[in-house]
Amino acid sequence: MSESHRWRVKPGSKVDLSDIDTRDPAGAPGDKDATVAASAALMDRLRVLQERLYAEDRRSVLVVLQAMDAGGKDGTVKHVFTGVNPAGVSVSSFKAPSHKELAHDFLWRVHLRVPERGQIGVFNRSHYEDVLVVRVDGLAPESVWRPRYEAIADFERNLAREGTTIVKFFLHISKEEQAERLQARLDDPEKHWKFNPADLEARDQWDDYQDAYAEAIERTSTDDAPWFVVPADRKWYRNWVVSTVLVETLERLDPRFPDPPEGLDGFTIE
Amino acid sequence: MSESHRWRVKPGSKVDLSDIDTRDPAGAPGDKDATVAASAALMDRLRVLQERLYAEDRRSVLVVLQAMDAGGKDGTVKHVFTGVNPAGVSVSSFKAPSHKELAHDFLWRVHLRVPERGQIGVFNRSHYEDVLVVRVDGLAPESVWRPRYEAIADFERNLAREGTTIVKFFLHISKEEQAERLQARLDDPEKHWKFNPADLEARDQWDDYQDAYAEAIERTSTDDAPWFVVPADRKWYRNWVVSTVLVETLERLDPRFPDPPEGLDGFTIE
Repeated sequence: MSESHRWRVKPGSKVDLSDIDTRDPAGAPGDKDATVAASAALMDRLRVLQERLYAEDRRSVLVVLQAMDAGGKDGTVKHVFTGVNPAGVSVSSFKAPSHKELAHDFLWRVHLRVPERGQIGVFNRSHYEDVLVVRVDGLAPESVWRPRYEAIADFERNLAREGTTIVKFFLHISKEEQAERLQARLDDPEKHWKFNPADLEARDQWDDYQDAYAEAIERTSTDDAPWFVVPADRKWYRNWVVSTVLVETLERLDPRFPDPPEGLDGFTIE
Repeated sequence: MSESHRWRVKPGSKVDLSDIDTRDPAGAPGDKDATVAASAALMDRLRVLQERLYAEDRRSVLVVLQAMDAGGKDGTVKHVFTGVNPAGVSVSSFKAPSHKELAHDFLWRVHLRVPERGQIGVFNRSHYEDVLVVRVDGLAPESVWRPRYEAIADFERNLAREGTTIVKFFLHISKEEQAERLQARLDDPEKHWKFNPADLEARDQWDDYQDAYAEAIERTSTDDAPWFVVPADRKWYRNWVVSTVLVETLERLDPRFPDPPEGLDGFTIE
Protein backbone atom coordinates (compact mmCIF):
# COMPACT_ATOMS: atom_id res chain seq x y z
CA MET A 1 0.00 0.00 0.00
CA SER A 2 1.16 3.53 -0.65
CA GLU A 3 2.53 5.45 2.32
CA SER A 4 2.82 8.69 0.38
CA HIS A 5 -0.84 9.67 0.77
CA ARG A 6 -0.14 10.46 4.43
CA TRP A 7 1.84 13.59 3.56
CA ARG A 8 0.30 14.42 0.21
CA VAL A 9 -1.76 17.59 -0.06
CA LYS A 10 -4.92 16.66 -1.94
CA PRO A 11 -5.62 19.05 -4.81
CA GLY A 12 -8.14 21.65 -3.74
CA SER A 13 -7.80 20.97 -0.02
CA LYS A 14 -7.21 23.64 2.61
CA VAL A 15 -3.74 23.82 4.18
CA ASP A 16 -3.26 24.91 7.79
CA LEU A 17 0.41 24.46 8.62
CA SER A 18 -0.11 25.24 12.33
CA ASP A 19 -2.28 22.15 12.42
CA ILE A 20 0.51 19.84 11.19
CA ASP A 21 2.78 18.63 13.99
CA THR A 22 6.42 19.16 12.95
CA ARG A 23 7.66 16.44 15.32
CA ASP A 24 5.11 13.69 14.65
CA PRO A 25 6.84 10.59 13.23
CA ALA A 26 3.54 9.17 11.94
CA GLY A 27 3.91 5.93 10.02
CA ALA A 28 7.64 5.55 10.75
CA PRO A 29 8.74 1.91 10.68
CA GLY A 30 9.98 2.14 14.27
CA ASP A 31 12.24 4.21 16.48
CA LYS A 32 15.14 6.28 15.16
CA ASP A 33 17.47 3.34 14.56
CA ALA A 34 14.84 1.24 12.83
CA THR A 35 13.84 4.19 10.66
CA VAL A 36 17.43 4.96 9.67
CA ALA A 37 17.84 1.32 8.66
CA ALA A 38 14.63 1.46 6.62
CA SER A 39 15.87 4.61 4.90
CA ALA A 40 19.14 2.93 3.95
CA ALA A 41 17.17 0.17 2.24
CA LEU A 42 15.05 2.76 0.43
CA MET A 43 18.18 4.55 -0.80
CA ASP A 44 19.51 1.28 -2.21
CA ARG A 45 16.23 0.86 -4.02
CA LEU A 46 16.38 4.44 -5.27
CA ARG A 47 19.82 3.75 -6.75
CA VAL A 48 18.49 0.78 -8.70
CA LEU A 49 15.38 2.62 -9.92
CA GLN A 50 17.41 5.63 -10.99
CA GLU A 51 19.74 3.41 -12.99
CA ARG A 52 16.74 2.06 -14.89
CA LEU A 53 15.32 5.53 -15.43
CA TYR A 54 18.67 6.51 -16.92
CA ALA A 55 18.89 3.43 -19.13
CA GLU A 56 15.29 3.84 -20.28
CA ASP A 57 16.03 7.45 -21.29
CA ARG A 58 12.38 8.38 -21.84
CA ARG A 59 11.20 10.18 -18.72
CA SER A 60 12.53 12.36 -15.94
CA VAL A 61 11.73 13.21 -12.34
CA LEU A 62 11.81 16.66 -10.79
CA VAL A 63 12.09 16.97 -7.01
CA VAL A 64 11.37 20.40 -5.52
CA LEU A 65 12.58 21.13 -1.99
CA GLN A 66 11.33 24.14 -0.10
CA ALA A 67 11.64 25.04 3.58
CA MET A 68 12.35 27.87 5.96
CA ASP A 69 16.05 28.54 6.53
CA ALA A 70 17.71 25.61 8.32
CA GLY A 71 14.67 23.56 7.39
CA GLY A 72 16.86 20.77 6.05
CA LYS A 73 17.00 21.24 2.28
CA ASP A 74 20.77 20.68 2.06
CA GLY A 75 20.62 17.81 4.53
CA THR A 76 17.86 16.12 2.55
CA VAL A 77 19.86 16.32 -0.69
CA LYS A 78 22.89 14.92 1.09
CA HIS A 79 21.12 12.09 2.89
CA VAL A 80 18.67 11.00 0.23
CA PHE A 81 20.78 11.39 -2.92
CA THR A 82 24.31 10.54 -1.83
CA GLY A 83 24.51 6.96 -2.96
CA VAL A 84 22.72 7.52 -6.27
CA ASN A 85 24.96 7.68 -9.34
CA PRO A 86 25.61 11.41 -9.83
CA ALA A 87 25.54 10.90 -13.61
CA GLY A 88 21.76 10.60 -13.23
CA VAL A 89 21.13 13.38 -10.73
CA SER A 90 21.45 17.12 -11.19
CA VAL A 91 21.07 19.37 -8.18
CA SER A 92 20.20 23.03 -8.82
CA SER A 93 20.38 25.56 -6.00
CA PHE A 94 18.45 28.71 -6.72
CA LYS A 95 19.85 31.76 -4.98
CA ALA A 96 18.82 35.40 -5.39
CA PRO A 97 18.35 35.87 -9.15
CA SER A 98 21.10 37.58 -11.14
CA HIS A 99 20.60 40.76 -13.10
CA LYS A 100 20.30 38.70 -16.28
CA GLU A 101 17.79 36.31 -14.74
CA LEU A 102 15.66 39.20 -13.54
CA ALA A 103 15.60 40.49 -17.10
CA HIS A 104 13.48 37.42 -17.94
CA ASP A 105 10.17 36.08 -16.67
CA PHE A 106 10.46 34.25 -13.35
CA LEU A 107 10.22 30.77 -14.87
CA TRP A 108 13.05 31.30 -17.36
CA ARG A 109 15.98 30.37 -15.13
CA VAL A 110 14.03 27.45 -13.71
CA HIS A 111 13.12 26.07 -17.12
CA LEU A 112 16.81 26.02 -18.05
CA ARG A 113 17.49 23.62 -15.16
CA VAL A 114 14.69 21.06 -15.50
CA PRO A 115 16.05 17.52 -15.79
CA GLU A 116 16.80 15.87 -19.12
CA ARG A 117 15.25 12.51 -19.98
CA GLY A 118 16.71 9.80 -17.79
CA GLN A 119 17.61 12.22 -15.02
CA ILE A 120 16.40 13.11 -11.55
CA GLY A 121 16.57 16.86 -11.11
CA VAL A 122 16.59 18.26 -7.60
CA PHE A 123 15.69 21.91 -6.98
CA ASN A 124 17.05 23.29 -3.72
CA ARG A 125 14.67 26.25 -3.62
CA SER A 126 12.84 26.91 -6.87
CA HIS A 127 10.31 29.02 -8.74
CA TYR A 128 8.27 28.94 -5.52
CA GLU A 129 10.54 31.65 -4.10
CA ASP A 130 8.73 33.94 -6.55
CA VAL A 131 5.54 33.59 -4.48
CA LEU A 132 7.36 33.35 -1.12
CA VAL A 133 10.22 35.78 -0.50
CA VAL A 134 8.89 38.00 -3.28
CA ARG A 135 5.52 38.19 -1.50
CA VAL A 136 6.77 38.47 2.08
CA ASP A 137 9.45 41.06 1.32
CA GLY A 138 7.20 42.94 -1.10
CA LEU A 139 9.72 42.58 -3.95
CA ALA A 140 6.83 42.75 -6.38
CA PRO A 141 3.22 43.93 -5.93
CA GLU A 142 0.43 41.40 -5.42
CA SER A 143 -0.77 42.08 -8.97
CA VAL A 144 2.52 40.52 -10.11
CA TRP A 145 2.95 37.60 -7.72
CA ARG A 146 -0.65 36.45 -7.40
CA PRO A 147 -1.04 35.36 -11.06
CA ARG A 148 2.09 33.26 -10.62
CA TYR A 149 0.18 30.46 -8.89
CA GLU A 150 -1.58 29.87 -12.17
CA ALA A 151 1.62 30.32 -14.17
CA ILE A 152 3.34 27.73 -12.00
CA ALA A 153 0.50 25.24 -12.31
CA ASP A 154 0.49 25.66 -16.10
CA PHE A 155 4.27 25.27 -16.30
CA GLU A 156 4.26 22.13 -14.19
CA ARG A 157 1.33 20.61 -16.07
CA ASN A 158 3.16 21.07 -19.34
CA LEU A 159 6.35 19.54 -17.98
CA ALA A 160 4.32 16.58 -16.75
CA ARG A 161 2.75 16.17 -20.19
CA GLU A 162 6.20 15.98 -21.72
CA GLY A 163 7.33 13.19 -19.43
CA THR A 164 8.55 14.84 -16.24
CA THR A 165 7.10 13.52 -13.00
CA ILE A 166 7.12 16.24 -10.36
CA VAL A 167 7.10 15.83 -6.59
CA LYS A 168 7.36 18.80 -4.25
CA PHE A 169 8.34 18.71 -0.60
CA PHE A 170 7.78 21.33 2.04
CA LEU A 171 10.07 20.46 4.94
CA HIS A 172 7.99 21.71 7.83
CA ILE A 173 9.92 22.71 10.97
CA SER A 174 8.84 24.57 14.09
CA LYS A 175 10.14 27.99 15.01
CA GLU A 176 11.83 26.45 18.08
CA GLU A 177 13.62 23.86 15.95
CA GLN A 178 14.86 26.60 13.63
CA ALA A 179 16.30 28.48 16.62
CA GLU A 180 18.22 25.39 17.71
CA ARG A 181 19.60 24.77 14.25
CA LEU A 182 20.65 28.37 13.64
CA GLN A 183 22.29 28.40 17.08
CA ALA A 184 24.18 25.22 16.19
CA ARG A 185 25.47 26.92 13.05
CA LEU A 186 26.80 29.76 15.17
CA ASP A 187 28.37 27.49 17.77
CA ASP A 188 29.98 24.82 15.57
CA PRO A 189 33.07 25.95 13.60
CA GLU A 190 32.27 23.38 10.87
CA LYS A 191 28.78 24.84 10.44
CA HIS A 192 29.58 28.53 10.68
CA TRP A 193 29.77 28.85 6.90
CA LYS A 194 26.09 27.98 6.64
CA PHE A 195 25.05 30.86 8.88
CA ASN A 196 23.68 33.87 7.06
CA PRO A 197 22.69 36.90 9.13
CA ALA A 198 19.83 37.51 6.66
CA ASP A 199 18.22 34.32 7.99
CA LEU A 200 17.42 36.26 11.19
CA GLU A 201 15.32 38.76 9.24
CA ALA A 202 13.35 35.96 7.62
CA ARG A 203 12.90 34.45 11.07
CA ASP A 204 11.25 37.68 12.23
CA GLN A 205 8.76 37.23 9.39
CA TRP A 206 7.95 33.63 10.41
CA ASP A 207 4.16 33.96 10.39
CA ASP A 208 4.11 35.77 7.06
CA TYR A 209 6.20 33.00 5.54
CA GLN A 210 3.96 30.30 6.97
CA ASP A 211 0.97 32.06 5.40
CA ALA A 212 2.76 32.38 2.07
CA TYR A 213 3.75 28.70 2.12
CA ALA A 214 0.25 27.59 3.00
CA GLU A 215 -1.29 29.51 0.13
CA ALA A 216 1.37 28.41 -2.37
CA ILE A 217 0.93 24.78 -1.42
CA GLU A 218 -2.87 25.02 -1.49
CA ARG A 219 -2.95 26.63 -4.90
CA THR A 220 -0.36 24.47 -6.63
CA SER A 221 -0.80 20.97 -5.25
CA THR A 222 -2.13 19.19 -8.33
CA ASP A 223 -2.31 15.60 -9.53
CA ASP A 224 0.48 16.45 -11.96
CA ALA A 225 2.69 17.98 -9.30
CA PRO A 226 1.59 17.21 -5.75
CA TRP A 227 3.01 18.83 -2.62
CA PHE A 228 4.04 16.73 0.36
CA VAL A 229 4.21 18.43 3.75
CA VAL A 230 6.94 16.64 5.71
CA PRO A 231 7.16 16.95 9.51
CA ALA A 232 10.85 17.79 9.53
CA ASP A 233 11.98 18.54 13.08
CA ARG A 234 13.42 15.05 13.30
CA LYS A 235 15.95 14.64 10.51
CA TRP A 236 15.80 10.85 10.51
CA TYR A 237 12.04 10.94 10.01
CA ARG A 238 12.29 13.61 7.29
CA ASN A 239 14.84 11.53 5.35
CA TRP A 240 12.65 8.48 5.60
CA VAL A 241 9.56 10.34 4.38
CA VAL A 242 11.31 11.87 1.37
CA SER A 243 12.93 8.53 0.48
CA THR A 244 9.60 6.75 0.81
CA VAL A 245 7.76 9.17 -1.46
CA LEU A 246 10.56 9.09 -4.06
CA VAL A 247 10.76 5.32 -4.13
CA GLU A 248 6.98 5.01 -4.39
CA THR A 249 6.98 7.57 -7.19
CA LEU A 250 9.66 5.73 -9.15
CA GLU A 251 8.08 2.33 -8.51
CA ARG A 252 4.89 3.70 -10.06
CA LEU A 253 6.85 4.93 -13.09
CA ASP A 254 8.40 1.47 -13.29
CA PRO A 255 11.28 2.36 -15.62
CA ARG A 256 12.61 -0.57 -17.67
CA PHE A 257 15.82 -1.41 -19.43
CA PRO A 258 15.08 -0.81 -23.12
CA ASP A 259 14.77 -3.61 -25.63
CA PRO A 260 17.95 -4.66 -27.42
CA PRO A 261 18.65 -3.22 -30.86
CA GLU A 262 17.34 -5.60 -33.51
CA GLY A 263 19.38 -7.98 -35.59
CA LEU A 264 22.20 -8.43 -33.10
CA ASP A 265 21.16 -11.78 -31.62
CA GLY A 266 24.10 -14.12 -31.48
CA PHE A 267 26.41 -11.45 -32.91
CA THR A 268 30.07 -11.92 -31.99
CA ILE A 269 32.55 -9.06 -31.57
CA GLU A 270 35.82 -9.67 -33.32
CA MET B 1 54.34 10.07 -0.53
CA SER B 2 52.38 10.77 -3.65
CA GLU B 3 51.22 7.79 -5.64
CA SER B 4 49.90 9.88 -8.50
CA HIS B 5 53.27 10.37 -10.20
CA ARG B 6 53.14 6.75 -11.29
CA TRP B 7 50.40 7.43 -13.86
CA ARG B 8 51.09 11.10 -14.53
CA VAL B 9 52.34 12.07 -17.97
CA LYS B 10 55.20 14.47 -17.41
CA PRO B 11 54.84 17.63 -19.50
CA GLY B 12 56.90 17.36 -22.66
CA SER B 13 57.43 13.61 -22.41
CA LYS B 14 56.79 11.15 -25.24
CA VAL B 15 53.72 8.90 -24.95
CA ASP B 16 53.72 5.36 -26.38
CA LEU B 17 50.45 3.75 -25.37
CA SER B 18 51.48 0.33 -26.70
CA ASP B 19 54.22 0.44 -24.11
CA ILE B 20 51.81 0.83 -21.18
CA ASP B 21 50.40 -2.48 -19.92
CA THR B 22 46.62 -2.19 -19.61
CA ARG B 23 46.46 -4.99 -17.02
CA ASP B 24 49.33 -4.05 -14.77
CA PRO B 25 48.08 -3.32 -11.23
CA ALA B 26 51.28 -1.49 -10.31
CA GLY B 27 51.24 0.03 -6.84
CA ALA B 28 47.90 -1.50 -5.85
CA PRO B 29 47.61 -1.98 -2.10
CA GLY B 30 47.04 -5.72 -2.57
CA ASP B 31 44.83 -8.15 -4.43
CA LYS B 32 41.37 -7.29 -5.73
CA ASP B 33 39.65 -7.45 -2.34
CA ALA B 34 42.28 -5.40 -0.57
CA THR B 35 42.22 -2.82 -3.36
CA VAL B 36 38.43 -2.54 -3.30
CA ALA B 37 38.62 -1.96 0.46
CA ALA B 38 41.28 0.71 -0.02
CA SER B 39 39.11 2.40 -2.66
CA ALA B 40 36.15 2.49 -0.26
CA ALA B 41 38.30 4.32 2.29
CA LEU B 42 39.45 6.76 -0.41
CA MET B 43 35.85 7.45 -1.42
CA ASP B 44 34.98 8.27 2.20
CA ARG B 45 37.88 10.67 2.24
CA LEU B 46 36.74 12.18 -1.07
CA ARG B 47 33.32 12.83 0.44
CA VAL B 48 34.83 14.74 3.34
CA LEU B 49 37.19 16.75 1.12
CA GLN B 50 34.42 17.62 -1.29
CA GLU B 51 32.26 18.88 1.57
CA ARG B 52 35.07 21.25 2.57
CA LEU B 53 35.61 22.37 -1.02
CA TYR B 54 31.90 23.21 -1.15
CA ALA B 55 31.92 25.03 2.19
CA GLU B 56 35.06 26.95 1.26
CA ASP B 57 33.41 28.10 -1.99
CA ARG B 58 36.60 29.50 -3.51
CA ARG B 59 37.95 26.85 -5.90
CA SER B 60 36.73 24.05 -8.12
CA VAL B 61 38.00 20.79 -9.57
CA LEU B 62 37.49 19.57 -13.13
CA VAL B 63 37.87 15.86 -13.86
CA VAL B 64 38.12 14.87 -17.52
CA LEU B 65 37.47 11.23 -18.45
CA GLN B 66 38.40 9.93 -21.87
CA ALA B 67 38.60 6.36 -23.16
CA MET B 68 37.79 4.14 -26.09
CA ASP B 69 34.19 2.86 -26.12
CA ALA B 70 33.55 0.53 -23.18
CA GLY B 71 36.73 1.88 -21.63
CA GLY B 72 34.97 2.48 -18.33
CA LYS B 73 34.02 6.15 -18.27
CA ASP B 74 30.48 5.53 -16.99
CA GLY B 75 31.69 2.91 -14.53
CA THR B 76 34.32 5.27 -13.15
CA VAL B 77 31.75 8.01 -12.56
CA LYS B 78 29.48 5.52 -10.84
CA HIS B 79 32.11 3.89 -8.66
CA VAL B 80 34.19 6.90 -7.71
CA PHE B 81 31.50 9.56 -7.29
CA THR B 82 28.50 7.67 -5.95
CA GLY B 83 28.86 8.43 -2.27
CA VAL B 84 29.81 12.06 -2.74
CA ASN B 85 27.06 14.60 -2.06
CA PRO B 86 25.55 15.27 -5.52
CA ALA B 87 25.00 18.91 -4.55
CA GLY B 88 28.75 19.32 -5.01
CA VAL B 89 29.25 17.26 -8.16
CA SER B 90 28.06 17.96 -11.69
CA VAL B 91 28.53 15.33 -14.35
CA SER B 92 28.47 16.44 -17.99
CA SER B 93 28.29 13.89 -20.78
CA PHE B 94 29.34 15.27 -24.13
CA LYS B 95 27.68 13.55 -27.05
CA ALA B 96 27.83 14.48 -30.73
CA PRO B 97 27.49 18.27 -30.79
CA SER B 98 24.11 19.78 -31.67
CA HIS B 99 23.55 22.09 -34.61
CA LYS B 100 23.68 25.06 -32.26
CA GLU B 101 26.87 23.87 -30.59
CA LEU B 102 28.53 23.40 -33.98
CA ALA B 103 27.65 27.00 -34.79
CA HIS B 104 30.17 27.99 -32.09
CA ASP B 105 33.87 27.34 -31.57
CA PHE B 106 34.60 23.87 -30.17
CA LEU B 107 35.28 25.10 -26.63
CA TRP B 108 31.98 26.97 -26.28
CA ARG B 109 29.79 24.11 -25.12
CA VAL B 110 32.54 22.88 -22.82
CA HIS B 111 33.07 26.27 -21.21
CA LEU B 112 29.36 26.39 -20.35
CA ARG B 113 29.76 23.23 -18.26
CA VAL B 114 32.91 23.93 -16.25
CA PRO B 115 32.30 23.61 -12.51
CA GLU B 116 31.30 26.54 -10.32
CA ARG B 117 33.32 27.42 -7.26
CA GLY B 118 32.93 24.75 -4.60
CA GLN B 119 32.06 22.07 -7.14
CA ILE B 120 33.70 19.04 -8.68
CA GLY B 121 32.81 18.90 -12.37
CA VAL B 122 33.16 15.59 -14.17
CA PHE B 123 33.38 15.51 -17.97
CA ASN B 124 32.40 12.17 -19.49
CA ARG B 125 34.08 12.83 -22.84
CA SER B 126 35.08 16.43 -23.40
CA HIS B 127 36.71 18.98 -25.70
CA TYR B 128 39.30 16.27 -26.42
CA GLU B 129 36.83 14.65 -28.81
CA ASP B 130 37.62 17.59 -31.06
CA VAL B 131 41.12 16.25 -31.59
CA LEU B 132 40.08 12.56 -31.43
CA VAL B 133 36.93 11.57 -33.35
CA VAL B 134 37.22 14.76 -35.40
CA ARG B 135 40.74 13.75 -36.44
CA VAL B 136 40.16 10.02 -36.95
CA ASP B 137 36.91 10.44 -38.86
CA GLY B 138 38.19 13.43 -40.79
CA LEU B 139 35.32 15.62 -39.61
CA ALA B 140 37.60 18.61 -40.03
CA PRO B 141 40.90 19.04 -41.90
CA GLU B 142 44.22 18.91 -40.04
CA SER B 143 44.55 22.67 -40.46
CA VAL B 144 41.51 22.96 -38.19
CA TRP B 145 42.15 20.29 -35.56
CA ARG B 146 45.91 20.64 -35.16
CA PRO B 147 45.84 24.18 -33.72
CA ARG B 148 43.36 22.91 -31.14
CA TYR B 149 46.11 21.37 -28.99
CA GLU B 150 47.29 24.89 -28.32
CA ALA B 151 43.76 26.20 -27.91
CA ILE B 152 43.06 23.51 -25.33
CA ALA B 153 46.25 24.20 -23.40
CA ASP B 154 45.44 27.92 -23.34
CA PHE B 155 41.87 27.28 -22.23
CA GLU B 156 42.94 24.95 -19.43
CA ARG B 157 45.71 27.26 -18.26
CA ASN B 158 43.23 30.10 -17.95
CA LEU B 159 40.75 27.96 -16.02
CA ALA B 160 43.57 26.94 -13.69
CA ARG B 161 44.51 30.57 -13.13
CA GLU B 162 40.95 31.32 -12.11
CA GLY B 163 40.88 28.63 -9.46
CA THR B 164 39.96 25.41 -11.25
CA THR B 165 42.24 22.44 -10.65
CA ILE B 166 42.16 20.11 -13.65
CA VAL B 167 42.97 16.39 -13.74
CA LYS B 168 42.55 14.32 -16.88
CA PHE B 169 42.32 10.57 -17.08
CA PHE B 170 42.80 8.34 -20.08
CA LEU B 171 41.34 4.96 -19.18
CA HIS B 172 43.61 2.68 -21.16
CA ILE B 173 42.14 -0.69 -22.17
CA SER B 174 43.37 -3.34 -24.59
CA LYS B 175 41.56 -4.22 -27.79
CA GLU B 176 40.86 -7.68 -26.35
CA GLU B 177 39.27 -6.22 -23.22
CA GLN B 178 37.08 -3.98 -25.36
CA ALA B 179 35.86 -7.03 -27.30
CA GLU B 180 34.87 -8.76 -24.07
CA ARG B 181 33.03 -5.74 -22.76
CA LEU B 182 31.15 -5.04 -25.99
CA GLN B 183 30.22 -8.72 -26.15
CA ALA B 184 28.91 -8.54 -22.58
CA ARG B 185 26.71 -5.59 -23.58
CA LEU B 186 25.25 -7.68 -26.37
CA ASP B 187 24.71 -10.74 -24.21
CA ASP B 188 23.32 -9.19 -21.01
CA PRO B 189 19.75 -7.80 -21.29
CA GLU B 190 20.52 -5.22 -18.58
CA LYS B 191 23.49 -3.93 -20.58
CA HIS B 192 21.99 -4.01 -24.08
CA TRP B 193 21.03 -0.37 -23.86
CA LYS B 194 24.69 0.59 -23.68
CA PHE B 195 25.50 -1.10 -26.97
CA ASN B 196 25.84 1.20 -29.92
CA PRO B 197 26.55 -0.33 -33.34
CA ALA B 198 28.68 2.73 -34.14
CA ASP B 199 31.15 1.49 -31.52
CA LEU B 200 32.12 -1.27 -33.96
CA GLU B 201 33.24 1.28 -36.53
CA ALA B 202 35.42 3.02 -33.99
CA ARG B 203 36.81 -0.39 -33.05
CA ASP B 204 37.94 -0.85 -36.65
CA GLN B 205 39.89 2.38 -36.30
CA TRP B 206 41.61 1.24 -33.10
CA ASP B 207 45.18 2.09 -34.13
CA ASP B 208 44.22 5.49 -35.49
CA TYR B 209 42.51 6.29 -32.18
CA GLN B 210 45.51 5.14 -30.16
CA ASP B 211 47.70 7.45 -32.23
CA ALA B 212 45.28 10.33 -31.79
CA TYR B 213 45.12 9.75 -28.03
CA ALA B 214 48.89 9.54 -27.72
CA GLU B 215 49.43 12.83 -29.51
CA ALA B 216 46.61 14.60 -27.63
CA ILE B 217 48.00 13.45 -24.29
CA GLU B 218 51.56 14.34 -25.22
CA ARG B 219 50.67 17.82 -26.37
CA THR B 220 48.31 18.77 -23.56
CA SER B 221 49.73 17.21 -20.40
CA THR B 222 50.79 20.33 -18.52
CA ASP B 223 51.50 21.22 -14.92
CA ASP B 224 48.19 23.06 -14.90
CA ALA B 225 46.24 20.15 -16.31
CA PRO B 226 48.12 16.86 -16.23
CA TRP B 227 47.03 13.66 -17.94
CA PHE B 228 47.02 10.36 -16.09
CA VAL B 229 47.15 7.17 -18.15
CA VAL B 230 45.28 4.53 -16.15
CA PRO B 231 45.74 0.80 -16.89
CA ALA B 232 42.00 0.09 -17.01
CA ASP B 233 41.44 -3.54 -18.00
CA ARG B 234 40.82 -4.35 -14.33
CA LYS B 235 37.98 -2.20 -13.10
CA TRP B 236 38.91 -2.53 -9.45
CA TYR B 237 42.41 -1.22 -10.18
CA ARG B 238 41.10 1.59 -12.38
CA ASN B 239 38.72 2.78 -9.62
CA TRP B 240 41.52 2.73 -7.09
CA VAL B 241 43.85 4.73 -9.33
CA VAL B 242 41.28 7.41 -10.10
CA SER B 243 40.27 7.66 -6.43
CA THR B 244 43.89 7.87 -5.38
CA VAL B 245 44.71 10.69 -7.80
CA LEU B 246 41.57 12.62 -6.84
CA VAL B 247 42.15 12.33 -3.13
CA GLU B 248 45.79 13.34 -3.50
CA THR B 249 44.73 16.30 -5.64
CA LEU B 250 42.17 17.47 -3.10
CA GLU B 251 44.53 16.89 -0.16
CA ARG B 252 47.00 19.19 -1.89
CA LEU B 253 44.29 21.83 -2.33
CA ASP B 254 43.50 21.39 1.36
CA PRO B 255 40.10 23.14 1.34
CA ARG B 256 39.06 24.61 4.70
CA PHE B 257 35.83 25.55 6.35
CA PRO B 258 35.71 29.35 6.11
CA ASP B 259 36.13 31.61 9.10
CA PRO B 260 32.96 32.59 10.94
CA PRO B 261 31.32 35.92 10.12
CA GLU B 262 32.59 38.57 12.55
CA GLY B 263 30.75 39.95 15.54
CA LEU B 264 28.61 36.90 16.18
CA ASP B 265 30.59 35.40 19.07
CA GLY B 266 28.28 34.43 21.88
CA PHE B 267 25.23 35.53 19.88
CA THR B 268 22.00 33.83 20.92
CA ILE B 269 19.12 33.15 18.55
CA GLU B 270 15.76 34.11 19.99
